[in-house]
Amino acid sequence: MKLIYKGKTKDVHELDSDKVLLKFKDDVTGNDGVFDPGANTVGLSIEGMGNLGLRLTKFFFEKLNDMDIPTHYVDSDLDNQNMTVLKAKPFGKGVEVICRYKAVGSFIRRYGMYIEEGQELDAYVEITLKDDERNDPLITDEALEMLNIMTKKEYEILTSLTRKISKVIKDELSKKDLELYDIKLEFGRVGNDNHIALIDEISAGNMRVYGDGKYIEPFELGKIILS
Amino acid sequence: MKLIYKGKTKDVHELDSDKVLLKFKDDVTGNDGVFDPGANTVGLSIEGMGNLGLRLTKFFFEKLNDMDIPTHYVDSDLDNQNMTVLKAKPFGKGVEVICRYKAVGSFIRRYGMYIEEGQELDAYVEITLKDDERNDPLITDEALEMLNIMTKKEYEILTSLTRKISKVIKDELSKKDLELYDIKLEFGRVGNDNHIALIDEISAGNMRVYGDGKYIEPFELGKIILS
Repeated sequence: MKLIYKGKTKDVHELDSDKVLLKFKDDVTGNDGVFDPGANTVGLSIEGMGNLGLRLTKFFFEKLNDMDIPTHYVDSDLDNQNMTVLKAKPFGKGVEVICRYKAVGSFIRRYGMYIEEGQELDAYVEITLKDDERNDPLITDEALEMLNIMTKKEYEILTSLTRKISKVIKDELSKKDLELYDIKLEFGRVGNDNHIALIDEISAGNMRVYGDGKYIEPFELGKIILS
Repeated sequence: MKLIYKGKTKDVHELDSDKVLLKFKDDVTGNDGVFDPGANTVGLSIEGMGNLGLRLTKFFFEKLNDMDIPTHYVDSDLDNQNMTVLKAKPFGKGVEVICRYKAVGSFIRRYGMYIEEGQELDAYVEITLKDDERNDPLITDEALEMLNIMTKKEYEILTSLTRKISKVIKDELSKKDLELYDIKLEFGRVGNDNHIALIDEISAGNMRVYGDGKYIEPFELGKIILS
């Protein structure tokens, strides 16, 4: 099995021409030991985080597959902390899709002149480029098309899928009296027809969730969701 | 005549309930004595710059008014270095609209992973918020609507006007063998019907222009256009 990519929170191994294996690690993104889902560096390592991330991802991806929402998920092996997925072609060198229900994080850093922290947003979706060096810049649908990263049609499909998937996760969380503030998803083009599918993971490290108005750390969040 | 606003390159005085007077100054934006149309600070003062800016603005606004493209321009007084304009209501606390024909400046700082400096862009339009403290952040049509800054319909009118106006300026420059790389425009809502009109100024300090592949400083540029 060939290691083809060493990521911040996962390693990727080639399985065959159609599939790869994702190995979940215990690292989460953040700065100086403080968790931040928007950060570009590994901030801390939490024992059991990889296992928890995989179990959460399995939980949500199987739910989405059952609803016929396209994902790259095939199956998972909890004992060996890995997941088999379909190969996906990235948009450009990779983009991140954020769905926001409350104004926090980089939304406030950008638009704090117009909105207070914690104010409601109506499933606002935005796309940023994966580019650590340039701090993951925001990009519009028009620029995505002009730079040959995705077509306007793909943009429409992708943002509509994002709202649908985020709603599934938001609803699941509210069953536990938790509130989803924002979530970061990744998509790719899968199969010969290049259909757009959710890829990567859905885990506590990719979302900001509050309970009783208090922010819940990823590890605790993961345990609550799976309880 | 009441001074109602002291701007970086112009002061604004109230004339009556419908009109204000813009007084052009010799200051241009930049950093440490170097001109930069995207900067938020006054970088240098050039004697005669205010007069030149007003003459250029008069030249372009009269041309646009003749073409029935809506602007706030009424008339100008070159001797006293001021211009009478219709009052305009801003979008939120003010936005800037950029039209790009070549990738330079902040476009490269954001998207340099995908494009080389100087590569062609097809009259790409983007909007940034006027917010010095947050470095004039980029904003999408969806966020503009969500933050009640402008509706999607206004966004469509505004970007279409931007392409039309930028084309007029680009064509005018090419008569002098000059090439427009990018330009920054401002718009407001004017009159009782709140129609969208070009406001502020069109001067050499708001555009990047090249001749024979060489960047042309605003003062020199102004003199060439008016020669």
